[in-house]
Amino acid sequence: MEIITSVREMQALARKWRQGGKSTGFVPTMGYLHEGHLTLMRKARTENEITVASIFVNPLQFGVGEDYEEYPRDLERDAPLAEAAGVDYLFVPTVREMYPRGYQTFVEVTEVTRGLCGASRPGHFRGVTTVVMKLFNIVKPDRAYFGWKDAQQVQVIRRMVEDLNLDVEIIPVPIVREADGLALSSRNVYLEPEERKAALVLSRSLKRAEELVAQGERQPEVIKEQVKQMIEAEPLAQIDYVELVALPDLTPLEQLQGQALLALAVRIGKTRLIDNTVLEVEG
Amino acid sequence: MEIITSVREMQALARKWRQGGKSTGFVPTMGYLHEGHLTLMRKARTENEITVASIFVNPLQFGVGEDYEEYPRDLERDAPLAEAAGVDYLFVPTVREMYPRGYQTFVEVTEVTRGLCGASRPGHFRGVTTVVMKLFNIVKPDRAYFGWKDAQQVQVIRRMVEDLNLDVEIIPVPIVREADGLALSSRNVYLEPEERKAALVLSRSLKRAEELVAQGERQPEVIKEQVKQMIEAEPLAQIDYVELVALPDLTPLEQLQGQALLALAVRIGKTRLIDNTVLEVEG
Repeated sequence: MEIITSVREMQALARKWRQGGKSTGFVPTMGYLHEGHLTLMRKARTENEITVASIFVNPLQFGVGEDYEEYPRDLERDAPLAEAAGVDYLFVPTVREMYPRGYQTFVEVTEVTRGLCGASRPGHFRGVTTVVMKLFNIVKPDRAYFGWKDAQQVQVIRRMVEDLNLDVEIIPVPIVREADGLALSSRNVYLEPEERKAALVLSRSLKRAEELVAQGERQPEVIKEQVKQMIEAEPLAQIDYVELVALPDLTPLEQLQGQALLALAVRIGKTRLIDNTVLEVEG
Repeated sequence: MEIITSVREMQALARKWRQGGKSTGFVPTMGYLHEGHLTLMRKARTENEITVASIFVNPLQFGVGEDYEEYPRDLERDAPLAEAAGVDYLFVPTVREMYPRGYQTFVEVTEVTRGLCGASRPGHFRGVTTVVMKLFNIVKPDRAYFGWKDAQQVQVIRRMVEDLNLDVEIIPVPIVREADGLALSSRNVYLEPEERKAALVLSRSLKRAEELVAQGERQPEVIKEQVKQMIEAEPLAQIDYVELVALPDLTPLEQLQGQALLALAVRIGKTRLIDNTVLEVEG
């Protein structure tokens, strides 16, 4: 595996692969890799001739008071993990390399970004779409892999790709969980032992919602209320949002029908965690 | 020459050329072609193996009350002109093809868009950068050609290309003028005969500024004042702006030094015309 830090060098390699007709799979990450990231990389590896991953903690997608400074970074730990997962090139640019002096261009998706994390993190998705657009132009992948834990992010990027006619296939990969149900996240490292236990309320409440739907419940308000009650019963948890929206547009639902996304953001102590499940009802 | 109306078809062709290593030159236009456009096309023709031009009157770059509806359109006139100028593929998408239902993604350059036309036409450059980004992704050119009459547009697009790491070279082409000095524009067709005469005040006032600089004048305010006075002396002309700014950032100037852009927007009757010249002073 080769580590590349220069945009110019990464782009020159990508240009060569495109011209040589070599298929490229790309896994953009913010590093501190866990099994979720590695699953994306292994999948990219099996579906493409060349696998590129990036590690870049993107300041543009963090709001004021969020955890940009604290976000865990450890390239010495990440590099061998990426290599073992089959990554050929690990792109690790600096902030200055990605946003040089005078930087002033932004990509914005205006609708599917409104609710959920877009509502509680203003500017977050503008940062995500801008950096992903840059990374796509630098790496020129045929396929890009994103974890479904950030389901809204997947929908936002799909929308950007479709709207701006980008020539890349977006491939979402199911959430990877610990044995006890906790969705993997680089932010789990923030959790104290008792918070780690409390955090299980996210996946448990999603399971409860799935059971309700299996039992025939079709009213979004009833399902959301049950989920909220479960989370509120956990003293260390504070709800940021509990939303049940239609896929793929993430618009409000009157009644469960087709594919819906039940998405949560919950603060466990100071740590904001997200999780989700797709509820499917035959129409 | 082949006329293409489908995004998908255009993109499939472009992908083939890229893979085949064929260089592509691209001239995006809003049609109603004049010698300025044709100069861009002929230049693209000499510098690339394949020449693509587009004709698309982009609603996104017109403001409320602007001339989107009236903007002249005549594909039957344009197609043979483009073909004679060496265009291989003329891409002519519909508005629905470019902005299908649910469209919601925009590209924005925030600084170099602030003054000049950006100030008098809010949202204009957001429309320009969005459509150019789409066209670049569809046509995948190696080089794209833009007329220098829209000097700010050239700088905005260069900035977007640099910031978003696009793999395309932006080539500005000098303004083409009528024998009497009027800069060519599709909007010149709006001018009544006496307005056509009055419109010469734009190029004449730019010439006057060049003379002042040749005579040693270095104060932007003095130069702008002289230009304004000349334009104000023309009864049919109404100044939108007269600006003298630094290149390439279009920031204000205290003193002429290096390359500066003297840019005008002037209403002649109901027709808004723009023109400019580069004033160069050895530092």
